[in-house]
Amino acid sequence: MIRCPRGTRDFLPDEMERRRHYEGILRDVAHTFGFREIGTPIFEEAELFIIRSGPNILDELYGFKDKGDRELALRPELTAPAIRLFVNGMSNHPKPIKVFYFGQCFRYERPQSGRYREFFQFGAEIIGSATPETDAEAIALAVSMIRGLGLTDYRVRIGHIGILRQRLVDAGVGKDDMAEILRKLDKKSYDEAEPLLEDAGVSDADIADIFAMTDGTDGIGILAGIAGEAGDHLRSVLSCLRDMGVRDVEVDLGVVRGLDYYTGIVFEAEAPALGAEKQICGGGSYTLSELFGGEKVFSTGFAIGFDRILLALEKEGAVYEADGIGAYVIPASAEMRTRATEVTALLRAAGIPTDTDIMGRKLAKAMKSASDSGARCAVIVGAKESEDDAVTVRDMVSGAQTVVGIADLADFIRRP
Amino acid sequence: MIRCPRGTRDFLPDEMERRRHYEGILRDVAHTFGFREIGTPIFEEAELFIIRSGPNILDELYGFKDKGDRELALRPELTAPAIRLFVNGMSNHPKPIKVFYFGQCFRYERPQSGRYREFFQFGAEIIGSATPETDAEAIALAVSMIRGLGLTDYRVRIGHIGILRQRLVDAGVGKDDMAEILRKLDKKSYDEAEPLLEDAGVSDADIADIFAMTDGTDGIGILAGIAGEAGDHLRSVLSCLRDMGVRDVEVDLGVVRGLDYYTGIVFEAEAPALGAEKQICGGGSYTLSELFGGEKVFSTGFAIGFDRILLALEKEGAVYEADGIGAYVIPASAEMRTRATEVTALLRAAGIPTDTDIMGRKLAKAMKSASDSGARCAVIVGAKESEDDAVTVRDMVSGAQTVVGIADLADFIRRP
Repeated sequence: MIRCPRGTRDFLPDEMERRRHYEGILRDVAHTFGFREIGTPIFEEAELFIIRSGPNILDELYGFKDKGDRELALRPELTAPAIRLFVNGMSNHPKPIKVFYFGQCFRYERPQSGRYREFFQFGAEIIGSATPETDAEAIALAVSMIRGLGLTDYRVRIGHIGILRQRLVDAGVGKDDMAEILRKLDKKSYDEAEPLLEDAGVSDADIADIFAMTDGTDGIGILAGIAGEAGDHLRSVLSCLRDMGVRDVEVDLGVVRGLDYYTGIVFEAEAPALGAEKQICGGGSYTLSELFGGEKVFSTGFAIGFDRILLALEKEGAVYEADGIGAYVIPASAEMRTRATEVTALLRAAGIPTDTDIMGRKLAKAMKSASDSGARCAVIVGAKESEDDAVTVRDMVSGAQTVVGIADLADFIRRP
Repeated sequence: MIRCPRGTRDFLPDEMERRRHYEGILRDVAHTFGFREIGTPIFEEAELFIIRSGPNILDELYGFKDKGDRELALRPELTAPAIRLFVNGMSNHPKPIKVFYFGQCFRYERPQSGRYREFFQFGAEIIGSATPETDAEAIALAVSMIRGLGLTDYRVRIGHIGILRQRLVDAGVGKDDMAEILRKLDKKSYDEAEPLLEDAGVSDADIADIFAMTDGTDGIGILAGIAGEAGDHLRSVLSCLRDMGVRDVEVDLGVVRGLDYYTGIVFEAEAPALGAEKQICGGGSYTLSELFGGEKVFSTGFAIGFDRILLALEKEGAVYEADGIGAYVIPASAEMRTRATEVTALLRAAGIPTDTDIMGRKLAKAMKSASDSGARCAVIVGAKESEDDAVTVRDMVSGAQTVVGIADLADFIRRP
């Protein structure tokens, strides 16, 4: 028996409809923020992802050559394609450009809870603006999406890559040691960061101060004591967010994320219910277009892990019930089949999801099918009622039966 | 400059929103017919497609090995994955199972008008039923989708693979010659079919009759003269379609399609405006599940070429205009920025797509941005009106300006 490849999933109707529902919410929220959707191919030149993420990404890429010997790869993320699209086709659009996207991404990694080889990412980018308002707009969208989905237990932490970098430079960390130390601090691996900082010649007092700065507690208080442009910028972002009604964010100067890639603010959202794989969103400001052959523009963007956020909603007990079938039409006898088909077509044309027996089943068996279908009502087309242009509507929950005229049928069924 | 790979496309916002709009129509129509959506991975074991389509498909597959040395392939079509999903996860669901799907497919072929290496397919399958009502249900859905999209110039041709096969057998065509002759007749290549039929020992009278049967003219009349089960079945399908209000279909006994794959009715829809690549939909009844390790069940399904049908709509002059931005909020002065941000948040919370200046632009430049954004109105937040909890709304088409209280603002903007 052939199954779907390891790390990929099939979605049966209940799950698929749930996913489409939540996907629709994310799209609606993005639209209310004035973001517009773009689409890019499932695969790209592998080079695109190496430029953004470095050659290590090769280990995680599903790569292949096409028959023209070009090195292609299934996309592992969507920021690089979005910026490539901007460089290729939108660079002359008025700035700022606000776009979002949703689709499958692929990483060749060990499948585990909340991690798949084929996963779904929703993301947004604001291209061509570098103001605090820009960063606030992106963060507000991310938070509004999380809230819009109905997730209640989430944390959003905002930092600024420039603040921590400057603090490390001031403490004497040189260029060569910077990346490794940032990586340890990002993971809050202080045991491992300490010897690295000592080797870099940082004093014990500075080390303690750096640890306090990055441990995620009292971030607002620490930020208040930080002078300079980066500190001012982050304070302005927080002020804008307050004006937008986004107050449930924390300052955590230890958020570093993709290191070299980000240029200013960085932020992450997590759903604590998910345990070790709790990050549901990450983003920040960056420049990328110049690496793809375009002019250098500042951007702020983020990506939401759609699979993980759905998992978080599930853990919170969120239930989505699809609308399902409105009516199941049944001919009371073989002679009424034509009439039943007409009634079915009529309800469908009225926009009511309608199913009917197509297997020639007799009344009792067809009633069973109606019940299996989850239809809210069965519409029984009998000879006697048909003479008066009417049918019998049976409420599948209460069992109540009502004779309804054909002219009123769609309205009758549509009633809540 | 890195571009998207040959044969693939980027979709900029206008185009993407148009596609999402039409995708939504297809999904809505499928729901009214009681079909439910499923999802399958972008890639599958290559074997799956070879089983369905034969080894020739290998030439068109984007194939690659994963690190476990499994032969994988980007999906070239969605019927095989849908039936695999049925065998793996839905075989115990009550029959008939009515599912649909939408997504990217991939074929490594020469890109040309309406043909892409990455293309989008919408399709539906009814699994576990073989009645004429089943076939009619599938055809009616396909026709309703085409109509629902607004396409006006289309042709739907229905045949039955069994009728033509039987006619050829009766005329003396042996098993070995069957496939090649069917292929020529399917393409209506009578010049090439004639010598093959002669070599197979078919009489001139039979050849003339077979050509008349397959040339697509007077199909209904020809069908009337055909006895036997297959003829009865096709007549019943047409009768069901009439009951469903689907009368604009033709009988064409020359429709053959995938040869060995189909077992009963076969149908195609075309949009003549597209010229050589005019086929927009194809389907029929088949069995496939037993080849994937499941029990043998009869199915009827079809696929719609989403890209081609959009091209056909475009050629018919169909225009889709996205809703776009409802309001663009502008602070009249720097002091009013906080207030403007609050107004923006308020409109967004009310579900109105709202944009605002995030680049610190002054009034005149911000008005230009509002105009660029295509917003229906600009909301100007000035100091004087703010004292009365009001703003100035400028209609971007007429230029008319109205002072509106904040409490009424969302309703005012929502008014058509």
